[in-house]
Amino acid sequence: MKFKKRIYRLVEKGSHGKKINLIFDYVIMSLIVLSITSIILESIKEISSDFKIFLEWFDIFSVAVFSIEYLMRLYVSNQTHPASNKFKSVLKFVFSMNGLIDLFAILPFYLPLLIKIDLRFLRTLRLIRFLRILKINRYTKSLNLIWAVLKDKKSELAVTGFVTLLLLIFASFIMYNVEGEKQPDAFPNILAAFWWAVATLTTVGYGDVYPITGIGKFVSGIMALMGIGVVALPTGIIGSGFMDRLRDDKKCPHCGKKID
Amino acid sequence: MKFKKRIYRLVEKGSHGKKINLIFDYVIMSLIVLSITSIILESIKEISSDFKIFLEWFDIFSVAVFSIEYLMRLYVSNQTHPASNKFKSVLKFVFSMNGLIDLFAILPFYLPLLIKIDLRFLRTLRLIRFLRILKINRYTKSLNLIWAVLKDKKSELAVTGFVTLLLLIFASFIMYNVEGEKQPDAFPNILAAFWWAVATLTTVGYGDVYPITGIGKFVSGIMALMGIGVVALPTGIIGSGFMDRLRDDKKCPHCGKKID
Amino acid sequence: MKFKKRIYRLVEKGSHGKKINLIFDYVIMSLIVLSITSIILESIKEISSDFKIFLEWFDIFSVAVFSIEYLMRLYVSNQTHPASNKFKSVLKFVFSMNGLIDLFAILPFYLPLLIKIDLRFLRTLRLIRFLRILKINRYTKSLNLIWAVLKDKKSELAVTGFVTLLLLIFASFIMYNVEGEKQPDAFPNILAAFWWAVATLTTVGYGDVYPITGIGKFVSGIMALMGIGVVALPTGIIGSGFMDRLRDDKKCPHCGKKID
Amino acid sequence: MKFKKRIYRLVEKGSHGKKINLIFDYVIMSLIVLSITSIILESIKEISSDFKIFLEWFDIFSVAVFSIEYLMRLYVSNQTHPASNKFKSVLKFVFSMNGLIDLFAILPFYLPLLIKIDLRFLRTLRLIRFLRILKINRYTKSLNLIWAVLKDKKSELAVTGFVTLLLLIFASFIMYNVEGEKQPDAFPNILAAFWWAVATLTTVGYGDVYPITGIGKFVSGIMALMGIGVVALPTGIIGSGFMDRLRDDKKCPHCGKKID
Repeated sequence: MKFKKRIYRLVEKGSHGKKINLIFDYVIMSLIVLSITSIILESIKEISSDFKIFLEWFDIFSVAVFSIEYLMRLYVSNQTHPASNKFKSVLKFVFSMNGLIDLFAILPFYLPLLIKIDLRFLRTLRLIRFLRILKINRYTKSLNLIWAVLKDKKSELAVTGFVTLLLLIFASFIMYNVEGEKQPDAFPNILAAFWWAVATLTTVGYGDVYPITGIGKFVSGIMALMGIGVVALPTGIIGSGFMDRLRDDKKCPHCGKKID
Repeated sequence: MKFKKRIYRLVEKGSHGKKINLIFDYVIMSLIVLSITSIILESIKEISSDFKIFLEWFDIFSVAVFSIEYLMRLYVSNQTHPASNKFKSVLKFVFSMNGLIDLFAILPFYLPLLIKIDLRFLRTLRLIRFLRILKINRYTKSLNLIWAVLKDKKSELAVTGFVTLLLLIFASFIMYNVEGEKQPDAFPNILAAFWWAVATLTTVGYGDVYPITGIGKFVSGIMALMGIGVVALPTGIIGSGFMDRLRDDKKCPHCGKKID
Repeated sequence: MKFKKRIYRLVEKGSHGKKINLIFDYVIMSLIVLSITSIILESIKEISSDFKIFLEWFDIFSVAVFSIEYLMRLYVSNQTHPASNKFKSVLKFVFSMNGLIDLFAILPFYLPLLIKIDLRFLRTLRLIRFLRILKINRYTKSLNLIWAVLKDKKSELAVTGFVTLLLLIFASFIMYNVEGEKQPDAFPNILAAFWWAVATLTTVGYGDVYPITGIGKFVSGIMALMGIGVVALPTGIIGSGFMDRLRDDKKCPHCGKKID
Repeated sequence: MKFKKRIYRLVEKGSHGKKINLIFDYVIMSLIVLSITSIILESIKEISSDFKIFLEWFDIFSVAVFSIEYLMRLYVSNQTHPASNKFKSVLKFVFSMNGLIDLFAILPFYLPLLIKIDLRFLRTLRLIRFLRILKINRYTKSLNLIWAVLKDKKSELAVTGFVTLLLLIFASFIMYNVEGEKQPDAFPNILAAFWWAVATLTTVGYGDVYPITGIGKFVSGIMALMGIGVVALPTGIIGSGFMDRLRDDKKCPHCGKKID
């Protein structure tokens, strides 16, 4: 029981006191960074050919550590995810957000041993674990503030998103009818026109697809100008959300009363 | 009369109580989504060839439903659009915003039977009907807020838009004179230069048209930098509009009364 | 004297009462729109060849009207621009902002009669006169508000602009050294690199010039990310400026006291 | 001692009174502008070939002036950077931010005399010195305000930046797996995909790299739409920061005391 408590303290960030917990955290974080770096290096042929064996061994090592950590979390799941019995706790952890991320981050290594499938890109899920860094330090408050603002304005942002979606569909329907015949390669169907619509409304404008007819250019220009609104609306909404939050917290330092 | 009242309740969102009304709404909404999806699939040659007959039949079916709904709306128009006599009510509905959208959404099916014209892209107008979803649920408040802010700031946004338009015309006049001779294909006339101006000021920058002369690049650079202002101004206006609306719920610090 | 007063009332927007003044204004405004349209049409070869004579005659006609208007303004300059003597008034008007714009808008027609020079693009200056529309109607207040906000924040915006300029120069120096040898055509000198810097920082990204080396892409990425700040800073500044202005005007409708 | 005091007054902006200090400042500033201009001209082959000797002599002259100034600053370092002994003061100045910038701005001239290395682009560091202009005039307050806002919101901006970084890495991992095989030239490795991710998220969109597969376009579209959020979040944060600063000048409505 005492051993379990130690494991619990180790894998969960609850107890900050012990030095060993801090070391454990930094080791895991460093391993994530190194593991991501190794995946990037692996993709660069010029480098990976020289360090192939080293990178492979490092991959095995990091998966081993992540697997042990996963087992430890499974072991203490009845404390982190209390349920009526041990098995339910394990299930609760395995299918929790964190549990799934941890599982998917190591799964790509084991699966090819069983079935022939390349899921290595799932390893990038380790990155998400990195967000936990934000949770354990002084940035927590800021992250919570941003999250709270986005939640406050959820409804307004959703409406803006929905109208943007309608706009994108509408524009791609028009564009397909206008440019489809003149540029069968660039606008073969409405999905292709949708790709153009996104690139235009967000003002990315790769330049792989663009209108050549007069009406097409007119529609495209309208869309590009609307893109300004598509940026301005959420920015204004989020900005007012931050202002609102700040105002909520403010108290007069002299008389202690809340200032509206 | 009782039958008419039921039809009225069915097609107009006034009475939420009855379960049948809710079902009717969801059927119509689903049909719109399916109908839009079928138009998209129809445009993808690889898919449409296999499902050609199915897609055609679905089109006939959906138009039939929308037509019946349109007739029902016509039938109850004297209640939704009260006028001195029945005929005026019908006209009032037919030429109302909603009436026109409903008409144009089904017209593309019937017209080719009479005259040879391809207006199928008008079917996308069904999408606009989708905005009604927003009107019938919890997003109404957010949609109204956004709309109210845009209306509050209508005048400022119009001025910004007008100055932007002048800027676009001015820049395209200069660019045509500067680049027209060097790049007769890219800048054949002022309208083509206007296309460049929109792409630059909105920072889309497809890359199909860009200056090659020194002065042209200078003008283009100025325009691109002004593009920042063209984004910053409406964003600031809209942001302050949202702040203003939020403050409206507040009380005067002097007398404590609510400020409208 | 009475005649002069009438001219004065006609050309200057001081007296709104008389119907003739309103007609005069609308005639001038319409002529500006038509004149700009005719310049655009003139540039489109397919159209201009058919209407060449008509467009030329219209040009003569519009210049005639603008010239008469200019002479009328000269005539009443001692009232619009009071000075110690008539000649000084005339000079004061001619070299005033409005006077110069009016002059440059008609000059391109007369100059080629004397010297061989093509200044026709100066005709676009007529557009600036269009801004006066904003001054004579209900948009005045909005235009003044936007102007006041920009003036309030002049200093902050200037600092942002200056830092942006330094950033552009700095980035183009680095880019010239990094990419200059590899892409002598795209980055022949620092001015060319400056063109790239503007296109990147404003996120226009035409795609005519982009880095191909590793370091170049790194610098370009940093610049593109900084572009977000270059948009965010002025937007935030302008947004707070609008808020500030709105707050200044607000009084409690119940007790009449100013609300900070 | 008196001589040293004068040097101190000359190189440091502490004493505004004397006219000679002002002249000294303007000479240095002008020299920086001219020196930057000469570096730009040097890079333009068409121009530099004609003025080669003049530009070289000007370079020697400006470095001479900057070197003398640097020596003067070294000389008065015990006053600007007080330490226990003279040598420590000198070191303190040399390794101070300003000291390093001044050194690197003249070093590129001397180093090639010793070792064969081209560091001429370091001369651009002279530009940074230009920021001092902002410190000596009426823009100080605005610069301080902007700086203060960025510092106030440091934590929120850092979190936004961190999440953006995770997003970029995540997207480039996915994109490499999705497009890597179809476009081995555009997406040879994850670093190349990262270049695409930055260009897309910041909406620069050069058009040198873009997805061609369906999934790739889908991911790219999501990224481009997220780019809106990546602009909206910092803009909202900075905007609320400016508002917050402005409000700081206010008084509590309850007790009337100033709120810091």
